[in-house]
Amino acid sequence: MEKVTQMDIVRGMKASQLVDAMARSGVFGAGRIAKAAGIAEDMIRDKQCKVFFGLAGAMVPGGMKNIIIDMLENGWIDVFVTTGANLTHDVVEALGYSHYQGCCNVDDKELKKKKIDRIYESYMPNEVYEKMEDFFSEIYDGLSREKSIKEFLWRLGEQLKKRNKKGNRSLLVTCFEKKIPIFCPGIADSGIGLMMWGNLAKGKSCEVRAFDDLKEILSIAWDSKKAGVFYVGGGVPKNYIQQAMQFSPKSAEYGIQITMDRPEPGGSSGAELREGISWGKMNEKGKFIDVVCDATIALPLIVAKLKDDINTK
Amino acid sequence: MEKVTQMDIVRGMKASQLVDAMARSGVFGAGRIAKAAGIAEDMIRDKQCKVFFGLAGAMVPGGMKNIIIDMLENGWIDVFVTTGANLTHDVVEALGYSHYQGCCNVDDKELKKKKIDRIYESYMPNEVYEKMEDFFSEIYDGLSREKSIKEFLWRLGEQLKKRNKKGNRSLLVTCFEKKIPIFCPGIADSGIGLMMWGNLAKGKSCEVRAFDDLKEILSIAWDSKKAGVFYVGGGVPKNYIQQAMQFSPKSAEYGIQITMDRPEPGGSSGAELREGISWGKMNEKGKFIDVVCDATIALPLIVAKLKDDINTK
Amino acid sequence: MEKVTQMDIVRGMKASQLVDAMARSGVFGAGRIAKAAGIAEDMIRDKQCKVFFGLAGAMVPGGMKNIIIDMLENGWIDVFVTTGANLTHDVVEALGYSHYQGCCNVDDKELKKKKIDRIYESYMPNEVYEKMEDFFSEIYDGLSREKSIKEFLWRLGEQLKKRNKKGNRSLLVTCFEKKIPIFCPGIADSGIGLMMWGNLAKGKSCEVRAFDDLKEILSIAWDSKKAGVFYVGGGVPKNYIQQAMQFSPKSAEYGIQITMDRPEPGGSSGAELREGISWGKMNEKGKFIDVVCDATIALPLIVAKLKDDINTK
Amino acid sequence: MEKVTQMDIVRGMKASQLVDAMARSGVFGAGRIAKAAGIAEDMIRDKQCKVFFGLAGAMVPGGMKNIIIDMLENGWIDVFVTTGANLTHDVVEALGYSHYQGCCNVDDKELKKKKIDRIYESYMPNEVYEKMEDFFSEIYDGLSREKSIKEFLWRLGEQLKKRNKKGNRSLLVTCFEKKIPIFCPGIADSGIGLMMWGNLAKGKSCEVRAFDDLKEILSIAWDSKKAGVFYVGGGVPKNYIQQAMQFSPKSAEYGIQITMDRPEPGGSSGAELREGISWGKMNEKGKFIDVVCDATIALPLIVAKLKDDINTK
Repeated sequence: MEKVTQMDIVRGMKASQLVDAMARSGVFGAGRIAKAAGIAEDMIRDKQCKVFFGLAGAMVPGGMKNIIIDMLENGWIDVFVTTGANLTHDVVEALGYSHYQGCCNVDDKELKKKKIDRIYESYMPNEVYEKMEDFFSEIYDGLSREKSIKEFLWRLGEQLKKRNKKGNRSLLVTCFEKKIPIFCPGIADSGIGLMMWGNLAKGKSCEVRAFDDLKEILSIAWDSKKAGVFYVGGGVPKNYIQQAMQFSPKSAEYGIQITMDRPEPGGSSGAELREGISWGKMNEKGKFIDVVCDATIALPLIVAKLKDDINTK
Repeated sequence: MEKVTQMDIVRGMKASQLVDAMARSGVFGAGRIAKAAGIAEDMIRDKQCKVFFGLAGAMVPGGMKNIIIDMLENGWIDVFVTTGANLTHDVVEALGYSHYQGCCNVDDKELKKKKIDRIYESYMPNEVYEKMEDFFSEIYDGLSREKSIKEFLWRLGEQLKKRNKKGNRSLLVTCFEKKIPIFCPGIADSGIGLMMWGNLAKGKSCEVRAFDDLKEILSIAWDSKKAGVFYVGGGVPKNYIQQAMQFSPKSAEYGIQITMDRPEPGGSSGAELREGISWGKMNEKGKFIDVVCDATIALPLIVAKLKDDINTK
Repeated sequence: MEKVTQMDIVRGMKASQLVDAMARSGVFGAGRIAKAAGIAEDMIRDKQCKVFFGLAGAMVPGGMKNIIIDMLENGWIDVFVTTGANLTHDVVEALGYSHYQGCCNVDDKELKKKKIDRIYESYMPNEVYEKMEDFFSEIYDGLSREKSIKEFLWRLGEQLKKRNKKGNRSLLVTCFEKKIPIFCPGIADSGIGLMMWGNLAKGKSCEVRAFDDLKEILSIAWDSKKAGVFYVGGGVPKNYIQQAMQFSPKSAEYGIQITMDRPEPGGSSGAELREGISWGKMNEKGKFIDVVCDATIALPLIVAKLKDDINTK
Repeated sequence: MEKVTQMDIVRGMKASQLVDAMARSGVFGAGRIAKAAGIAEDMIRDKQCKVFFGLAGAMVPGGMKNIIIDMLENGWIDVFVTTGANLTHDVVEALGYSHYQGCCNVDDKELKKKKIDRIYESYMPNEVYEKMEDFFSEIYDGLSREKSIKEFLWRLGEQLKKRNKKGNRSLLVTCFEKKIPIFCPGIADSGIGLMMWGNLAKGKSCEVRAFDDLKEILSIAWDSKKAGVFYVGGGVPKNYIQQAMQFSPKSAEYGIQITMDRPEPGGSSGAELREGISWGKMNEKGKFIDVVCDATIALPLIVAKLKDDINTK
């Protein structure tokens, strides 16, 4: 047994050294952050391993966008699955808008008067929808001809790249440029969905199929020699990757989950990773860790450790 | 101000009387259960109000299926939105299988050997997938010609009804029979999705569109004189209804949310209903309550109160 | 394996029948409520078993006082451990004051102006402290001569009984009348503590010892043939009973815990009961259940089931 | 309004720079960590401010001991309130024992056989109690003559210092050496309590009073020109400080709370700091933040920022 080494905080210490100290203390939330960083490093360094990254929760309004773009650009993510909401907020920023630091103890009626949409403590001016409407009207015909959601999203990224004069960083643009498969089964449930509806309602059609992407994500899983999963939040992104893992030859051999959802109510979002062993989603000899922490705290710490340890730009 | 009347538990008391006592105590979880029951009664009795019901979490494996079917049959739900997982588990039971009472402190490796899939404390024999495969192979051609997910699900309900010889109750069959609009934007993310993929992988095609249902749900919202929302869990079902509420003339005037997710990490699932006021999803004068409770405890209590107060079969 | 029987809610059903249906569904929160009711019945019916009940959280402002008094009067509780706060609120009500139904989305500055103290959604008029001061000044000399906190609390109950003209029910009065050992190691941390300080500050002394009660609670544990624990909330009440269980011949053979605290941060309040096996606090063959639920919902349900099944007044 | 600046993680960045990036993103958990660090710096730099620090949860087994000792040695804490459990674990380490990195998915029966006590993921060999018994037998007479718990704890620290040949760092020794008032109202509820009981049971007496410390902590509060509170966990330590704040001339003008407990069940541990405004515990113009995070993650981050910004050794 290893001793719990009481953590020492040293003036000027690096974030990665803080994670090292957490590894030496080794228990509770700190220990789990450190284990997650270690498993993440292992799965990224393992050249045979395909990394499936699931992103749920308001992570673009929450300030995590660039961290994830860095992960995509560094080649740390092979398959990216997320929610329509995060992609909508990504479009918003790519079109030149920002989110703002707000407050949860606020009178929402006042915000409504000021036309500010609240995402807990993050604010977004409602006017972004007008600009999005113009943008989607212009590009609708191309988008609507795609057959899979992945192709739809790559095309959206391509179009955003063209409009994006300020060089704002974008998840969608990055996935398009790097040809990283990006999946979003619940895409209709988002501002992007509403933009598509705006044109459908005018009598236009849209060819994008609901089930077609399954062929691609399951093929990637099937063909992967090894697989790893990295979940920020639960929801559809986690579950969609989990079901793909059943088709990976050895299931997932690495796993990280960062969520504040509890397991006891029985839902997938809060389920511990080890539950996946019973399903054949997780390899029974795999390395897994559940991190019970706000992702806006846990993810930066983990990535700070990864950046210091893996040779990156 | 009303006094907190200390609750009295009386021998032989009805579940609805227990909720009445919770209304008189009026605070914390008990008070919120009682407020939710009151708001639910108001929204159901309000003949002008369209009730949008969102269901997430493993609520079929968790034993809530019949309660929701009763709500559907009683006409308490006008629009039903759920996850692919709940519908998959509904198919499983409609085909004659059951879920089983399990344990979370278990060796998942042993379950894997026994071919038992674990959903926290609920077990499902993995063999259900074989029977589902046969079923979907038989009905695939019809399903795959539908253009919207709602029509796809109604047809699935129709087919289940034909096979269902034991008279097992089913969410899908009920929605088909009662012509209740049922939406599931993330349908690909489920066992049903996998069954469709099994046929896609053989080279078949599937016409079901990703965005088409938006026309119908947004039309219902647009045409409703009043609207109410009832969320069991968060995820896509909640968010999909929330975005529809922006198109309802007065937004939602009634709202109930039952979830154990926290608001602080910023995601939609844990967001308090009042946040929706800023977006125009909730009416600023509406009646809303957030119930922080395991849904398998809260929902039966609320429905027991409703059944005693509303004239139902 | 038992099947998950989908719950049926029937018009006019009793609360105890609702718990029976939860037992048949058997999983998640509902299943745990039912298991807790079963274990509670077993430990109460087991004549050899001493039941140690720990009560933390604002359960008097939350409306649970009468339920616990019933349990005390029915002989269901042999040893009662609670917080100073609950006893202070008990004194407040015994002196004729009430708590009020409030709101958590409120401007606390406004409440301060109105001299209302907020306990989440329960309000208390600050003027109660004046009446408490008078009361404690009158009875101080007697109280301050007691050597143990238990004797101090019994005497306090005796004095409350004398003043209590309206017949308000009281935890302290009940424990005094029924001679139920009542422990409160953190008594100084409470309004009662402040009342004692008010007199200490005037130069009076107080003999009450910090450690003396340990002799009594550990003797009861030592002498008990069997032991059961019932925790509503964590904190000092749970931990104080847990440490006593190490001295009970067979440790606790029955255990119920109702809390919303999580285990992952490592604290005692959220720790699962099974952890106590390692310490010899819980018997490894004992029957235990952790209920993850707001106690103001779970406790009334469990007690409604108990009242229907155990022959009580 | 400030923009949410998407966080950038830079190779080699300091932990304090990570907190700076969190301040610029400004929302959700990351934003709250940064706000807490800012408020902590303000309250420490404010020479008129007395800092009251409350520590609950298994923070010594969790690896936070040295961080808190550093805070005490740096003069960042003027009044220290904690649980008996943390002080017991401090004694254990001061006597030369360690805690060990364990696992929560373990068979507690096996641990019992191996005489290992589990604190979630932290293990402690049960043999520590034997050495503690010897130690307390030797020093009992001195301890038992003290009248207040604070004097009792200082004397305990003095005795530990004498035995502590390896120079193990200790909360108790530090408070003794630096003459920092240390309070622990629930001291009987701990291994230290059991050690005292071991001697009481032999017929010895112990003079330590339950209420006497109130005079000192309330005097410090009364005499402080300004006050700040810093809570790691809730329980008695938080509540004991909160009630003292009612006696501070301006109530607490700075406040930090780190906890995973939820406010909705109504208990003090999860209560938001702003609730204290209604009671006169918090100043209505004060700077407060509630950090919803595992303390073993949040505290090291906050202290890393403080060490870089405040001139310390």
